[in-house]
Amino acid sequence: MSMRGNFTSVRQIKSAVGEFREFLSNTQRKGLAGTLKYRNMAGAAPSLTLDNMNPNIKALEYAVRGPLVIRAGEIEKELEKGVNKPFKEVLKANIGDCHAMGQQPITFIREVLALVSLPKLLDDPRFPEDAKERARTILKGCRGHSVGSYTDSPGIEVIRKHVAEYIERRDGHPSDWQNVFISAGASDSIKNVLKLLICPVNGKPPGGLIPIPQYPLYSATFAEFGINQIGYYLDESRNWGLDIAELQRAITEARKVCNPRALVVINPGNPTGSVLSRENIEEVIKFAYKEKLFLLADEVYQDNVYAEGCKFHSFKKVLVEMGEPYSSMELASFMSCSKGYMGECGLRGGYAEVINMDPEVKKMYMKAMSAMLCPTVLGQACLDTVVKPPQPGEPSYERFIKEKQGVLDDLKLRAKMVADTFNSMEGFSCNTVQGAMYAFPRITLPPKAIEQAKKEGKHADVFYAFELLENTGICIVPGSGFGQQPGTYHFRTTILPQTEKLKAMLAKFEEFQASFMKKYS
Amino acid sequence: MSMRGNFTSVRQIKSAVGEFREFLSNTQRKGLAGTLKYRNMAGAAPSLTLDNMNPNIKALEYAVRGPLVIRAGEIEKELEKGVNKPFKEVLKANIGDCHAMGQQPITFIREVLALVSLPKLLDDPRFPEDAKERARTILKGCRGHSVGSYTDSPGIEVIRKHVAEYIERRDGHPSDWQNVFISAGASDSIKNVLKLLICPVNGKPPGGLIPIPQYPLYSATFAEFGINQIGYYLDESRNWGLDIAELQRAITEARKVCNPRALVVINPGNPTGSVLSRENIEEVIKFAYKEKLFLLADEVYQDNVYAEGCKFHSFKKVLVEMGEPYSSMELASFMSCSKGYMGECGLRGGYAEVINMDPEVKKMYMKAMSAMLCPTVLGQACLDTVVKPPQPGEPSYERFIKEKQGVLDDLKLRAKMVADTFNSMEGFSCNTVQGAMYAFPRITLPPKAIEQAKKEGKHADVFYAFELLENTGICIVPGSGFGQQPGTYHFRTTILPQTEKLKAMLAKFEEFQASFMKKYS
Repeated sequence: MSMRGNFTSVRQIKSAVGEFREFLSNTQRKGLAGTLKYRNMAGAAPSLTLDNMNPNIKALEYAVRGPLVIRAGEIEKELEKGVNKPFKEVLKANIGDCHAMGQQPITFIREVLALVSLPKLLDDPRFPEDAKERARTILKGCRGHSVGSYTDSPGIEVIRKHVAEYIERRDGHPSDWQNVFISAGASDSIKNVLKLLICPVNGKPPGGLIPIPQYPLYSATFAEFGINQIGYYLDESRNWGLDIAELQRAITEARKVCNPRALVVINPGNPTGSVLSRENIEEVIKFAYKEKLFLLADEVYQDNVYAEGCKFHSFKKVLVEMGEPYSSMELASFMSCSKGYMGECGLRGGYAEVINMDPEVKKMYMKAMSAMLCPTVLGQACLDTVVKPPQPGEPSYERFIKEKQGVLDDLKLRAKMVADTFNSMEGFSCNTVQGAMYAFPRITLPPKAIEQAKKEGKHADVFYAFELLENTGICIVPGSGFGQQPGTYHFRTTILPQTEKLKAMLAKFEEFQASFMKKYS
Repeated sequence: MSMRGNFTSVRQIKSAVGEFREFLSNTQRKGLAGTLKYRNMAGAAPSLTLDNMNPNIKALEYAVRGPLVIRAGEIEKELEKGVNKPFKEVLKANIGDCHAMGQQPITFIREVLALVSLPKLLDDPRFPEDAKERARTILKGCRGHSVGSYTDSPGIEVIRKHVAEYIERRDGHPSDWQNVFISAGASDSIKNVLKLLICPVNGKPPGGLIPIPQYPLYSATFAEFGINQIGYYLDESRNWGLDIAELQRAITEARKVCNPRALVVINPGNPTGSVLSRENIEEVIKFAYKEKLFLLADEVYQDNVYAEGCKFHSFKKVLVEMGEPYSSMELASFMSCSKGYMGECGLRGGYAEVINMDPEVKKMYMKAMSAMLCPTVLGQACLDTVVKPPQPGEPSYERFIKEKQGVLDDLKLRAKMVADTFNSMEGFSCNTVQGAMYAFPRITLPPKAIEQAKKEGKHADVFYAFELLENTGICIVPGSGFGQQPGTYHFRTTILPQTEKLKAMLAKFEEFQASFMKKYS
């Protein structure tokens, strides 16, 4: 080791300190290794700190997995250790995680997954012939007939074709399989499209319109990508409908600070549970045309429509039927295996259908995808079963329909039960849960509670949600995580707990609400 | 429809044109719908074009799936249609896609996947008890005992613990499971770490050191994230070793234009097939310490070491054993299920072990991950079997070891066969393939060939690769896709074709090379 005599820069000093540390460390290592484990010296300072890390990552928030959920996890561990609580289990009504709440997988899906994973099961007579046939088709689409091979980056050709056929059956209009891009869940697809928009023009950042309340993937992704979030309020008084005057207000204000590029619509709505009418969709398409916006239709809940008189209309269908110029507008529509009746969240299967994209842009879109190689093949296999379920006359059909209808009927029942119960509670009002998997009721919080929240440095709705969690074990997401009109308070709860559990949860909720109101009024 | 009389802005004109189009379109729709399909009107112009899209996406390149591979796909379709070619099949030696080249899956892995997908198979006596036991453990780690549930964003706790145990066995040093982050393949992990570094300081963009040649995921991700690529040349004359003077040259030059933040090392090397010595790794760690760089060790080929006298040393192990201050440096090490002896590319399982990260930064890192919900659960299940394979005495052990060793022995044989054959060919020189799955031979191209390439507007190595593909069906990746010293030409080929196929491929290659040299000399 040589110690320099003169230090002319901070770098040199640091370097010399480093050398000195190294000298000591080596000495120590030779002398004391084992007992001291080389750990009692001052270590290297981190090179990556809050001050020099990606500021967009610091800014992003994802409430569905935020502090409340972290606390819920801690409480679960406390319960396991035997800590005494006024409840026996944590009820995670914070996330649309169907199987976690006891929903059973669809047998046909899982049979196909087992068969493609372990093809020697194709000889097993206990598997139905249609599941085997499907597994063979998928394996034929895999290089080397193995789900362990990479696929094309937008997915296996035959599955993309099945997706296009599904869209054609749904809409009654052609779909080109080369416009279908399979991904690891819809989130992945949404990010792949949004990242194309990152481009400041005339010194202004890009902006995108998102509903308020919204699913926080959008606010998180916008923050990460440096896209300005242009919130448009949904109209709670019209069952969370979409108001064109409000869209116009939002975009007009936003043009002062950013270039609005895209319009995100979530239908059926998350967290609102609303289902848009066809007229409403037409208005939105006309607005997007007028303002030259790229349309993103988050339609992952397209199978989840419960209320009488409500029907799912895809943006693609409406846009095509409106004719030119609308029918040649850019639209990306997203679908997932995680929701619907299947609820296969963990398998990460989803797709985007992207129409009318500029062909040169499409090349870039596909190029960006290719660096991530391919979406999970087993997620793709699951998607295949979702877009091409068993048909009448096939051996798995009866069981499939029974299982599917069972899930959807249960959800319909619970959608009504949740809204009705909340509406019967003091301080609550809840719109009809027309679709999706959530209720987003409004709570009127007493001034004393708002004051107490302020004292604790919390949003009032976050304060309420923490009180609920600590007292009942029920985990919900406060409305501030999705956005809400200033001065109003909401929360999102799923309708996923199985019916008996949901009844018990709602009873506990009522009891808590009564005592909360008593305490703070 | 109302047509305004005066147009005071371009927007108004456009809006009026839009109204006019709409009027015509509606008229038409009512009159001619069906036959004309609303398609003969001028459509909407795309809002997203090459001019206003993300410039970083335009800039990125991913050669492993570039134009050559696209052409290879076209040729495959031509062959299917019966087009006459001087060969009968395309040999995709461009990508490390093991099962696609005929490698068989490891039975234990697939049995566990089938069991967790379809738990009723747990009653099937034909499955070995250890596979069942493993499936039960994984299912117990899943909410609702279903792989269809979301997991924690960094993965299932019990699998993270198994990863930590694997690292401890490998290195002989402790690993904290809370430093393990499971992801959809290593690529996903690498991007999650790199994105933290996006932060301009003093008006300069961040920079990262990557080897040249490199695996193009790095150049693609750097381009996408706006991180300056600081290439350091590997020393071909020392079997692609890493030279500290070259690292120093690269970083010194780069400091003029960016802030170097990170150092990427790929070991065993992709595309080089080299394996770093322990001494070399120690030098690199010292360099990174001196320059305050965040270390990224891409160690996905840790099971793929073939050459006599070569051994895999993890950066974690070396860094810990060097003691302070090195042992408290930040390091992210990446591993995958896609390589090794398992080659399960399509399942998308991988992890990062991240040590010594600033705790506040770690919170942000986890928060960013949470918005993407969770990595595929079946990819996680595969990872579990990889980090905790069957042990001696367990029912699956013998078969597992036989299958694993079979794959690794074959690869070892082929690694030598490929390098020896290339070295026997005129105009070729190839380093020993010490590890990984690739050879990266150097070709001396005759001046006439270089001239011809220039005429066709191609890199000379790209020209060579296209000639090879069109004449033999062999698809390789030109060296320019990975980077190489100016004036030198290389390509990457995998060593994955099964032995007999590889022999035939090399024979064809020799024949092609002879005629190519004849044609252009």
